[in-house]
Amino acid sequence: MKLFIIKIGGNVIDNSEKLHEFLKDFVSLPGYKILVHGGGKMATQLADDMGIEAKMVEGRRITDIETLRIVTMVYAGLINKNIVAQLQFRNCNAIGLTGADANTIRASKRPVKDIDYGFVGDINDTSVSAEAIKNLLEDGLIPVFSAITHDGQGQLLNTNADTIASALAIGLSGLYETSLVYCFEKKGVLKDVEDDLSVIREIQSGEFDSLKEQGVVAGGMIPKLHNAFEAIKSGVKDVYIGKADELSELNGEQFGTRLIQ
Amino acid sequence: MKLFIIKIGGNVIDNSEKLHEFLKDFVSLPGYKILVHGGGKMATQLADDMGIEAKMVEGRRITDIETLRIVTMVYAGLINKNIVAQLQFRNCNAIGLTGADANTIRASKRPVKDIDYGFVGDINDTSVSAEAIKNLLEDGLIPVFSAITHDGQGQLLNTNADTIASALAIGLSGLYETSLVYCFEKKGVLKDVEDDLSVIREIQSGEFDSLKEQGVVAGGMIPKLHNAFEAIKSGVKDVYIGKADELSELNGEQFGTRLIQ
Repeated sequence: MKLFIIKIGGNVIDNSEKLHEFLKDFVSLPGYKILVHGGGKMATQLADDMGIEAKMVEGRRITDIETLRIVTMVYAGLINKNIVAQLQFRNCNAIGLTGADANTIRASKRPVKDIDYGFVGDINDTSVSAEAIKNLLEDGLIPVFSAITHDGQGQLLNTNADTIASALAIGLSGLYETSLVYCFEKKGVLKDVEDDLSVIREIQSGEFDSLKEQGVVAGGMIPKLHNAFEAIKSGVKDVYIGKADELSELNGEQFGTRLIQ
Repeated sequence: MKLFIIKIGGNVIDNSEKLHEFLKDFVSLPGYKILVHGGGKMATQLADDMGIEAKMVEGRRITDIETLRIVTMVYAGLINKNIVAQLQFRNCNAIGLTGADANTIRASKRPVKDIDYGFVGDINDTSVSAEAIKNLLEDGLIPVFSAITHDGQGQLLNTNADTIASALAIGLSGLYETSLVYCFEKKGVLKDVEDDLSVIREIQSGEFDSLKEQGVVAGGMIPKLHNAFEAIKSGVKDVYIGKADELSELNGEQFGTRLIQ
Protein backbone atom coordinates (compact mmCIF):
# COMPACT_ATOMS: atom_id res chain seq x y z
CA MET A 1 0.00 0.00 0.00
CA LYS A 2 1.26 3.47 -0.93
CA LEU A 3 1.67 6.31 1.57
CA PHE A 4 2.38 9.95 0.76
CA ILE A 5 3.83 12.20 3.45
CA ILE A 6 3.55 15.81 2.35
CA LYS A 7 5.23 18.71 4.09
CA ILE A 8 4.15 22.30 3.56
CA GLY A 9 5.79 25.41 4.93
CA GLY A 10 5.09 29.07 5.56
CA ASN A 11 4.78 30.04 1.90
CA VAL A 12 1.60 27.93 1.65
CA ILE A 13 0.26 28.43 5.19
CA ASP A 14 0.52 32.23 5.16
CA ASN A 15 -1.49 32.58 1.95
CA SER A 16 -5.08 31.39 2.42
CA GLU A 17 -5.75 31.16 -1.32
CA LYS A 18 -2.64 29.03 -1.88
CA LEU A 19 -3.57 26.91 1.10
CA HIS A 20 -7.07 26.24 -0.25
CA GLU A 21 -5.67 25.29 -3.65
CA PHE A 22 -3.10 23.03 -2.03
CA LEU A 23 -5.67 21.30 0.19
CA LYS A 24 -7.89 20.66 -2.85
CA ASP A 25 -4.99 18.86 -4.56
CA PHE A 26 -3.98 17.09 -1.34
CA VAL A 27 -7.49 15.63 -0.99
CA SER A 28 -7.31 14.24 -4.53
CA LEU A 29 -4.17 12.20 -3.88
CA PRO A 30 -5.01 8.49 -3.82
CA GLY A 31 -4.06 6.07 -1.03
CA TYR A 32 -2.88 6.74 2.49
CA LYS A 33 -1.54 10.21 3.19
CA ILE A 34 -0.22 12.39 5.98
CA LEU A 35 0.19 16.16 6.03
CA VAL A 36 2.93 17.89 8.02
CA HIS A 37 2.85 21.66 8.36
CA GLY A 38 5.31 24.21 9.64
CA GLY A 39 4.51 27.49 11.24
CA GLY A 40 4.72 30.45 8.95
CA LYS A 41 4.57 34.04 10.04
CA MET A 42 1.59 33.75 12.37
CA ALA A 43 3.68 32.80 15.41
CA THR A 44 5.94 35.81 14.90
CA GLN A 45 2.88 37.99 14.44
CA LEU A 46 1.33 36.74 17.68
CA ALA A 47 4.58 37.28 19.57
CA ASP A 48 4.65 40.84 18.22
CA ASP A 49 1.03 41.40 19.28
CA MET A 50 1.90 40.18 22.76
CA GLY A 51 5.03 42.31 22.90
CA ILE A 52 7.32 39.29 23.18
CA GLU A 53 10.66 39.58 21.44
CA ALA A 54 12.25 36.67 19.59
CA LYS A 55 15.16 35.35 21.67
CA MET A 56 18.30 34.92 19.59
CA VAL A 57 21.66 33.56 20.74
CA GLU A 58 24.55 33.77 18.27
CA GLY A 59 22.08 34.26 15.44
CA ARG A 60 20.04 31.16 16.37
CA ARG A 61 16.41 31.33 17.39
CA ILE A 62 15.80 30.04 20.92
CA THR A 63 12.54 28.41 22.05
CA ASP A 64 12.15 29.86 25.53
CA ILE A 65 9.04 29.06 27.57
CA GLU A 66 7.10 32.01 26.14
CA THR A 67 7.96 31.01 22.58
CA LEU A 68 6.92 27.43 23.29
CA ARG A 69 3.53 28.66 24.50
CA ILE A 70 3.13 30.69 21.34
CA VAL A 71 4.07 27.93 18.91
CA THR A 72 1.84 25.48 20.78
CA MET A 73 -1.08 27.89 20.39
CA VAL A 74 -0.40 28.83 16.78
CA TYR A 75 0.88 25.55 15.29
CA ALA A 76 -1.14 22.97 17.26
CA GLY A 77 -4.19 25.20 17.74
CA LEU A 78 -4.85 27.87 15.15
CA ILE A 79 -3.13 26.51 12.04
CA ASN A 80 -3.67 22.81 12.67
CA LYS A 81 -7.37 23.01 13.51
CA ASN A 82 -8.15 25.35 10.64
CA ILE A 83 -6.46 22.97 8.20
CA VAL A 84 -8.41 20.05 9.70
CA ALA A 85 -11.72 21.96 9.39
CA GLN A 86 -10.90 22.83 5.75
CA LEU A 87 -10.09 19.20 4.96
CA GLN A 88 -13.31 18.02 6.63
CA PHE A 89 -15.19 20.46 4.40
CA ARG A 90 -13.64 18.60 1.47
CA ASN A 91 -14.81 15.25 2.89
CA CYS A 92 -11.28 14.34 3.87
CA ASN A 93 -11.45 12.75 7.33
CA ALA A 94 -8.50 14.63 8.84
CA ILE A 95 -7.30 14.40 12.42
CA GLY A 96 -4.90 17.01 13.79
CA LEU A 97 -1.98 15.78 15.86
CA THR A 98 1.10 16.79 17.76
CA GLY A 99 3.67 14.17 18.65
CA ALA A 100 2.08 14.00 22.12
CA ASP A 101 -1.28 12.85 20.70
CA ALA A 102 -1.47 9.06 20.78
CA ASN A 103 2.25 9.27 21.63
CA THR A 104 2.96 9.40 17.89
CA ILE A 105 6.32 11.20 18.09
CA ARG A 106 8.45 11.24 21.22
CA ALA A 107 11.44 13.57 21.15
CA SER A 108 14.20 14.50 23.54
CA LYS A 109 15.06 18.02 24.56
CA ARG A 110 18.17 19.13 22.70
CA PRO A 111 21.17 18.84 25.04
CA VAL A 112 22.86 22.11 25.97
CA LYS A 113 26.33 22.35 24.44
CA ASP A 114 27.51 25.74 23.20
CA ILE A 115 23.97 27.03 22.88
CA ASP A 116 20.87 26.31 24.97
CA TYR A 117 18.16 26.10 22.34
CA GLY A 118 15.49 25.84 25.00
CA PHE A 119 12.41 23.70 24.43
CA VAL A 120 13.51 22.17 21.13
CA GLY A 121 12.92 18.47 20.54
CA ASP A 122 15.32 16.28 18.61
CA ILE A 123 14.01 13.05 17.18
CA ASN A 124 15.72 9.79 16.33
CA ASP A 125 15.06 6.35 14.83
CA THR A 126 12.81 5.27 17.72
CA SER A 127 10.78 8.49 18.05
CA VAL A 128 7.93 7.61 15.71
CA SER A 129 5.25 5.14 16.80
CA ALA A 130 4.43 3.52 13.45
CA GLU A 131 1.81 1.34 15.14
CA ALA A 132 -0.16 4.32 16.52
CA ILE A 133 -0.17 6.05 13.12
CA LYS A 134 -1.07 2.82 11.31
CA ASN A 135 -4.14 2.47 13.56
CA LEU A 136 -5.31 5.95 12.58
CA LEU A 137 -4.64 5.43 8.87
CA GLU A 138 -6.48 2.12 8.90
CA ASP A 139 -9.45 3.75 10.64
CA GLY A 140 -9.67 5.88 7.48
CA LEU A 141 -8.17 8.98 9.08
CA ILE A 142 -5.76 11.46 7.49
CA PRO A 143 -3.22 12.61 10.12
CA VAL A 144 -2.27 16.31 10.02
CA PHE A 145 0.85 16.93 12.09
CA SER A 146 1.94 20.26 13.51
CA ALA A 147 5.61 20.64 14.40
CA ILE A 148 5.17 20.05 18.14
CA THR A 149 6.37 16.89 19.91
CA HIS A 150 6.72 15.80 23.54
CA ASP A 151 9.38 14.15 25.68
CA GLY A 152 7.16 11.61 27.46
CA GLN A 153 7.76 13.46 30.73
CA GLY A 154 4.93 15.93 30.23
CA GLN A 155 6.96 18.51 28.31
CA LEU A 156 5.93 19.73 24.86
CA LEU A 157 8.80 20.54 22.48
CA ASN A 158 9.21 22.59 19.32
CA THR A 159 10.53 20.43 16.48
CA ASN A 160 11.55 21.19 12.91
CA ALA A 161 8.73 20.26 10.50
CA ASP A 162 11.09 18.95 7.78
CA THR A 163 12.62 16.63 10.35
CA ILE A 164 9.20 15.42 11.49
CA ALA A 165 8.18 14.65 7.90
CA SER A 166 11.39 12.74 7.30
CA ALA A 167 11.13 10.77 10.59
CA LEU A 168 7.51 9.85 9.82
CA ALA A 169 8.51 8.66 6.35
CA ILE A 170 11.36 6.53 7.69
CA GLY A 171 9.25 5.19 10.57
CA LEU A 172 6.39 4.17 8.28
CA SER A 173 8.49 2.85 5.39
CA GLY A 174 8.46 -0.61 6.95
CA LEU A 175 4.66 -0.72 6.68
CA TYR A 176 3.95 1.20 3.48
CA GLU A 177 5.58 2.07 0.15
CA THR A 178 6.35 5.57 1.37
CA SER A 179 6.95 8.71 -0.70
CA LEU A 180 8.10 11.86 1.09
CA VAL A 181 7.14 15.15 -0.56
CA TYR A 182 8.63 18.53 0.36
CA CYS A 183 6.74 21.53 -0.96
CA PHE A 184 8.79 24.69 -1.15
CA GLU A 185 8.87 27.91 -3.18
CA LYS A 186 10.68 26.50 -6.25
CA LYS A 187 9.49 24.03 -8.88
CA GLY A 188 12.25 21.61 -7.87
CA VAL A 189 16.03 21.36 -8.01
CA LEU A 190 16.99 23.69 -10.87
CA LYS A 191 19.89 23.17 -13.25
CA ASP A 192 19.98 26.96 -13.59
CA VAL A 193 18.73 28.75 -10.48
CA GLU A 194 17.55 31.68 -12.66
CA ASP A 195 15.45 29.44 -14.90
CA ASP A 196 12.30 27.96 -13.37
CA LEU A 197 11.94 25.65 -16.37
CA SER A 198 15.30 23.94 -15.77
CA VAL A 199 13.94 21.47 -13.20
CA ILE A 200 16.01 18.31 -12.90
CA ARG A 201 13.35 15.59 -13.02
CA GLU A 202 15.28 12.85 -11.27
CA ILE A 203 18.43 12.58 -9.17
CA GLN A 204 19.89 9.26 -8.10
CA SER A 205 21.82 9.14 -4.85
CA GLY A 206 25.05 8.40 -6.76
CA GLU A 207 24.70 11.69 -8.67
CA PHE A 208 24.48 13.87 -5.56
CA ASP A 209 28.24 14.35 -5.09
CA SER A 210 28.88 15.38 -8.67
CA LEU A 211 25.92 17.83 -8.61
CA LYS A 212 27.47 19.41 -5.52
CA GLU A 213 30.87 19.64 -7.24
CA GLN A 214 29.29 21.24 -10.31
CA GLY A 215 27.61 23.78 -8.00
CA VAL A 216 24.12 22.81 -9.28
CA VAL A 217 23.18 21.87 -5.73
CA ALA A 218 24.39 24.60 -3.39
CA GLY A 219 23.51 26.52 -0.23
CA GLY A 220 20.39 25.42 1.61
CA MET A 221 19.69 22.69 -0.96
CA ILE A 222 22.71 20.67 0.19
CA PRO A 223 21.36 19.72 3.67
CA LYS A 224 17.84 19.30 2.18
CA LEU A 225 19.06 16.77 -0.37
CA HIS A 226 21.45 15.17 2.08
CA ASN A 227 18.56 14.49 4.48
CA ALA A 228 16.38 13.27 1.64
CA PHE A 229 18.97 10.71 0.53
CA GLU A 230 19.43 9.62 4.15
CA ALA A 231 15.67 8.95 4.31
CA ILE A 232 15.89 6.91 1.10
CA LYS A 233 18.82 4.96 2.54
CA SER A 234 16.58 4.22 5.56
CA GLY A 235 13.77 2.71 3.52
CA VAL A 236 11.78 5.60 2.04
CA LYS A 237 10.95 4.79 -1.60
CA ASP A 238 11.50 8.27 -3.03
CA VAL A 239 11.56 11.93 -2.05
CA TYR A 240 9.98 14.67 -4.14
CA ILE A 241 10.89 18.35 -3.90
CA GLY A 242 8.60 20.77 -5.69
CA LYS A 243 6.08 23.57 -5.64
CA ALA A 244 2.88 23.20 -3.60
CA ASP A 245 0.66 24.49 -6.42
CA GLU A 246 1.82 21.68 -8.71
CA LEU A 247 0.96 18.89 -6.26
CA SER A 248 -1.75 17.52 -8.56
CA GLU A 249 1.05 16.39 -10.89
CA LEU A 250 2.36 14.00 -8.26
CA ASN A 251 0.04 11.32 -9.52
CA GLY A 252 1.71 11.28 -12.91
CA GLU A 253 5.10 11.25 -11.16
CA GLN A 254 6.10 14.47 -12.93
CA PHE A 255 6.07 16.59 -9.77
CA GLY A 256 9.22 18.64 -9.16
CA THR A 257 12.45 16.73 -8.63
CA ARG A 258 12.29 13.07 -7.69
CA LEU A 259 15.16 11.70 -5.62
CA ILE A 260 15.72 7.95 -5.69
CA GLN A 261 18.24 5.38 -4.48
CA MET B 1 -18.51 -1.95 28.69
CA LYS B 2 -18.40 1.11 30.94
CA LEU B 3 -17.50 4.60 29.74
CA PHE B 4 -16.83 7.65 31.91
CA ILE B 5 -17.08 11.11 30.37
CA ILE B 6 -15.52 13.64 32.70
CA LYS B 7 -15.82 17.38 32.30
CA ILE B 8 -13.48 19.81 34.06
CA GLY B 9 -13.69 23.57 34.07
CA GLY B 10 -11.62 26.64 34.81
CA ASN B 11 -11.24 25.96 38.54
CA VAL B 12 -9.14 22.86 37.71
CA ILE B 13 -7.42 24.10 34.54
CA ASP B 14 -6.23 27.39 36.01
CA ASN B 15 -4.48 25.71 38.94
CA SER B 16 -1.60 23.52 37.79
CA GLU B 17 -1.36 21.66 41.11
CA LYS B 18 -5.08 20.84 41.07
CA LEU B 19 -4.81 19.81 37.44
CA HIS B 20 -1.95 17.39 38.17
CA GLU B 21 -3.88 15.85 41.07
CA PHE B 22 -6.98 15.54 38.94
CA LEU B 23 -5.10 13.93 36.04
CA LYS B 24 -3.55 11.40 38.44
CA ASP B 25 -7.03 10.36 39.57
CA PHE B 26 -8.39 10.44 36.01
CA VAL B 27 -5.70 8.01 34.87
CA SER B 28 -6.66 5.58 37.65
CA LEU B 29 -10.28 5.30 36.52
CA PRO B 30 -10.94 1.87 35.01
CA GLY B 31 -12.55 1.23 31.61
CA TYR B 32 -13.09 3.55 28.71
CA LYS B 33 -12.93 7.26 29.45
CA ILE B 34 -13.09 10.66 27.78
CA LEU B 35 -12.01 14.02 29.18
CA VAL B 36 -13.72 17.28 28.19
CA HIS B 37 -12.16 20.55 29.27
CA GLY B 38 -13.34 24.12 29.26
CA GLY B 39 -11.24 27.20 28.94
CA GLY B 40 -10.44 28.93 32.17
CA LYS B 41 -8.85 32.31 32.49
CA MET B 42 -6.05 31.77 29.99
CA ALA B 43 -8.11 32.91 26.99
CA THR B 44 -9.07 36.13 28.76
CA GLN B 45 -5.43 36.61 29.75
CA LEU B 46 -4.25 36.17 26.16
CA ALA B 47 -6.90 38.58 24.88
CA ASP B 48 -5.69 41.12 27.47
CA ASP B 49 -2.06 40.59 26.41
CA MET B 50 -3.06 41.19 22.79
CA GLY B 51 -5.11 44.25 23.72
CA ILE B 52 -8.35 42.67 22.51
CA GLU B 53 -11.46 43.55 24.49
CA ALA B 54 -14.18 41.01 25.23
CA LYS B 55 -17.20 41.77 23.03
CA MET B 56 -20.41 41.86 25.03
CA VAL B 57 -23.94 42.42 23.72
CA GLU B 58 -26.72 42.77 26.31
CA GLY B 59 -24.48 41.19 28.91
CA ARG B 60 -23.71 38.15 26.75
CA ARG B 61 -20.23 37.29 25.58
CA ILE B 62 -19.89 37.26 21.79
CA THR B 63 -17.44 35.05 19.90
CA ASP B 64 -16.26 37.42 17.19
CA ILE B 65 -13.54 36.33 14.75
CA GLU B 66 -10.73 37.55 17.02
CA THR B 67 -12.17 35.71 20.02
CA LEU B 68 -12.55 32.55 17.94
CA ARG B 69 -8.86 32.76 17.00
CA ILE B 70 -7.95 33.13 20.66
CA VAL B 71 -10.07 30.25 21.96
CA THR B 72 -8.81 28.02 19.15
CA MET B 73 -5.24 28.80 20.17
CA VAL B 74 -5.79 28.51 23.91
CA TYR B 75 -8.33 25.66 24.17
CA ALA B 76 -7.31 23.44 21.23
CA GLY B 77 -3.61 24.34 21.39
CA LEU B 78 -2.17 25.38 24.72
CA ILE B 79 -4.52 23.72 27.23
CA ASN B 80 -5.40 20.62 25.22
CA LYS B 81 -1.86 19.69 24.23
CA ASN B 82 -0.46 20.30 27.70
CA ILE B 83 -3.11 18.01 29.19
CA VAL B 84 -2.32 15.37 26.57
CA ALA B 85 1.42 15.59 27.31
CA GLN B 86 0.72 15.28 31.06
CA LEU B 87 -1.47 12.24 30.49
CA GLN B 88 1.16 10.64 28.26
CA PHE B 89 3.68 11.15 31.09
CA ARG B 90 1.30 9.06 33.24
CA ASN B 91 1.20 6.32 30.59
CA CYS B 92 -2.32 7.27 29.60
CA ASN B 93 -2.52 7.17 25.80
CA ALA B 94 -4.38 10.44 25.34
CA ILE B 95 -5.32 12.05 22.02
CA GLY B 96 -6.41 15.68 21.92
CA LEU B 97 -9.39 16.53 19.76
CA THR B 98 -11.69 19.28 18.63
CA GLY B 99 -15.00 18.38 17.04
CA ALA B 100 -13.34 18.92 13.65
CA ASP B 101 -10.80 16.14 14.25
CA ALA B 102 -12.07 12.89 12.76
CA ASN B 103 -15.35 14.81 12.34
CA THR B 104 -16.23 13.78 15.90
CA ILE B 105 -18.62 16.69 16.65
CA ARG B 106 -20.33 18.69 13.93
CA ALA B 107 -22.18 21.78 15.12
CA SER B 108 -24.18 24.53 13.45
CA LYS B 109 -23.55 28.21 13.88
CA ARG B 110 -26.14 29.64 16.27
CA PRO B 111 -28.82 31.41 14.22
CA VAL B 112 -29.04 35.16 14.71
CA LYS B 113 -32.28 36.14 16.48
CA ASP B 114 -32.16 38.98 18.98
CA ILE B 115 -28.43 38.61 19.47
CA ASP B 116 -25.69 37.58 17.05
CA TYR B 117 -23.48 35.38 19.21
CA GLY B 118 -20.90 35.14 16.45
CA PHE B 119 -18.94 31.94 15.92
CA VAL B 120 -20.79 29.84 18.48
CA GLY B 121 -21.71 26.27 17.62
CA ASP B 122 -24.92 24.61 18.77
CA ILE B 123 -25.07 20.86 18.79
CA ASN B 124 -27.96 18.44 18.49
CA ASP B 125 -28.75 14.70 18.53
CA THR B 126 -26.90 14.01 15.30
CA SER B 127 -23.78 16.08 16.03
CA VAL B 128 -21.66 13.37 17.63
CA SER B 129 -20.07 10.67 15.50
CA ALA B 130 -20.19 7.73 17.92
CA GLU B 131 -18.49 5.51 15.34
CA ALA B 132 -15.44 7.78 15.04
CA ILE B 133 -15.02 7.98 18.81
CA LYS B 134 -15.57 4.23 19.22
CA ASN B 135 -12.71 3.59 16.77
CA LEU B 136 -10.37 5.72 18.87
CA LEU B 137 -11.46 4.16 22.18
CA GLU B 138 -11.04 0.67 20.78
CA ASP B 139 -7.55 1.55 19.54
CA GLY B 140 -6.77 2.09 23.24
CA LEU B 141 -6.84 5.88 23.03
CA ILE B 142 -8.23 8.31 25.61
CA PRO B 143 -9.92 11.24 23.81
CA VAL B 144 -9.39 14.68 25.36
CA PHE B 145 -11.86 17.20 23.91
CA SER B 146 -11.47 20.95 23.92
CA ALA B 147 -14.63 23.00 23.52
CA ILE B 148 -14.17 23.72 19.81
CA THR B 149 -16.33 22.18 17.10
CA HIS B 150 -16.79 22.74 13.36
CA ASP B 151 -19.71 23.16 10.97
CA GLY B 152 -18.52 20.83 8.20
CA GLN B 153 -18.10 23.84 5.92
CA GLY B 154 -14.58 24.66 7.09
CA GLN B 155 -15.61 26.90 9.97
CA LEU B 156 -14.46 26.26 13.54
CA LEU B 157 -16.98 27.16 16.27
CA ASN B 158 -16.81 27.88 19.99
CA THR B 159 -19.09 25.49 21.91
CA ASN B 160 -20.01 25.19 25.58
CA ALA B 161 -17.95 22.44 27.23
CA ASP B 162 -20.84 21.21 29.44
CA THR B 163 -22.93 20.80 26.31
CA ILE B 164 -20.16 18.90 24.55
CA ALA B 165 -19.80 16.52 27.50
CA SER B 166 -23.52 15.90 27.58
CA ALA B 167 -23.79 15.37 23.81
CA LEU B 168 -20.87 12.92 23.89
CA ALA B 169 -22.52 11.00 26.73
CA ILE B 170 -25.86 10.80 24.91
CA GLY B 171 -24.21 9.93 21.60
CA LEU B 172 -22.14 7.12 23.10
CA SER B 173 -24.80 5.73 25.45
CA GLY B 174 -25.99 3.37 22.72
CA LEU B 175 -22.57 1.72 22.63
CA TYR B 176 -21.41 1.89 26.26
CA GLU B 177 -22.84 2.00 29.77
CA THR B 178 -22.10 5.72 30.01
CA SER B 179 -21.63 7.82 33.14
CA LEU B 180 -21.32 11.58 32.74
CA VAL B 181 -19.31 13.38 35.42
CA TYR B 182 -19.31 17.15 35.95
CA CYS B 183 -16.51 18.45 38.14
CA PHE B 184 -17.20 21.84 39.66
CA GLU B 185 -16.20 23.84 42.74
CA LYS B 186 -18.64 22.20 45.20
CA LYS B 187 -18.70 18.68 46.61
CA GLY B 188 -22.09 18.07 45.00
CA VAL B 189 -25.67 19.25 45.31
CA LEU B 190 -25.85 20.55 48.90
CA LYS B 191 -28.94 20.35 51.13
CA ASP B 192 -27.56 23.43 52.88
CA VAL B 193 -25.49 25.61 50.56
CA GLU B 194 -23.45 26.83 53.58
CA ASP B 195 -22.56 23.28 54.65
CA ASP B 196 -20.10 21.39 52.46
CA LEU B 197 -20.90 18.18 54.32
CA SER B 198 -24.59 18.26 53.40
CA VAL B 199 -24.10 16.61 50.00
CA ILE B 200 -27.21 14.84 48.71
CA ARG B 201 -25.81 11.49 47.58
CA GLU B 202 -28.51 10.58 45.10
CA ILE B 203 -31.34 12.34 43.29
CA GLN B 204 -33.89 10.49 41.19
CA SER B 205 -35.45 12.36 38.28
CA GLY B 206 -38.86 12.25 40.05
CA GLU B 207 -37.43 14.19 42.99
CA PHE B 208 -36.13 17.10 40.91
CA ASP B 209 -39.36 19.13 40.93
CA SER B 210 -39.84 18.91 44.70
CA LEU B 211 -36.18 19.86 45.31
CA LYS B 212 -36.74 22.93 43.17
CA GLU B 213 -39.91 23.80 45.10
CA GLN B 214 -38.08 23.40 48.42
CA GLY B 215 -35.39 25.73 47.11
CA VAL B 216 -32.66 23.10 47.65
CA VAL B 217 -31.88 23.29 43.95
CA ALA B 218 -31.74 26.93 42.90
CA GLY B 219 -29.94 29.39 40.64
CA GLY B 220 -27.34 27.94 38.27
CA MET B 221 -27.96 24.42 39.58
CA ILE B 222 -31.43 24.31 37.98
CA PRO B 223 -30.28 24.28 34.32
CA LYS B 224 -27.32 22.02 35.27
CA LEU B 225 -29.62 19.39 36.77
CA HIS B 226 -32.25 19.88 34.10
CA ASN B 227 -29.67 19.09 31.41
CA ALA B 228 -28.37 16.16 33.43
CA PHE B 229 -31.82 14.58 33.68
CA GLU B 230 -32.36 15.20 29.96
CA ALA B 231 -29.16 13.25 29.28
CA ILE B 232 -30.39 10.42 31.50
CA LYS B 233 -33.72 10.42 29.67
CA SER B 234 -31.71 10.08 26.42
CA GLY B 235 -29.88 6.94 27.56
CA VAL B 236 -27.04 8.07 29.82
CA LYS B 237 -26.87 5.71 32.82
CA ASP B 238 -26.15 8.32 35.48
CA VAL B 239 -24.71 11.80 35.96
CA TYR B 240 -22.38 12.74 38.79
CA ILE B 241 -21.78 16.28 40.01
CA GLY B 242 -18.89 16.75 42.39
CA LYS B 243 -15.50 18.17 43.18
CA ALA B 244 -12.52 17.40 40.93
CA ASP B 245 -10.21 16.58 43.83
CA GLU B 246 -12.53 13.80 44.99
CA LEU B 247 -12.63 12.04 41.62
CA SER B 248 -10.84 8.98 43.02
CA GLU B 249 -14.03 8.23 44.99
CA LEU B 250 -15.94 7.72 41.76
CA ASN B 251 -14.93 4.08 41.72
CA GLY B 252 -16.75 3.42 44.98
CA GLU B 253 -19.77 5.34 43.61
CA GLN B 254 -19.58 7.80 46.52
CA PHE B 255 -18.49 10.74 44.39
CA GLY B 256 -20.55 13.91 44.87
CA THR B 257 -24.21 13.75 43.90
CA ARG B 258 -25.41 10.95 41.65
CA LEU B 259 -28.39 11.66 39.43
CA ILE B 260 -30.36 8.68 38.15
CA GLN B 261 -33.57 7.94 36.29
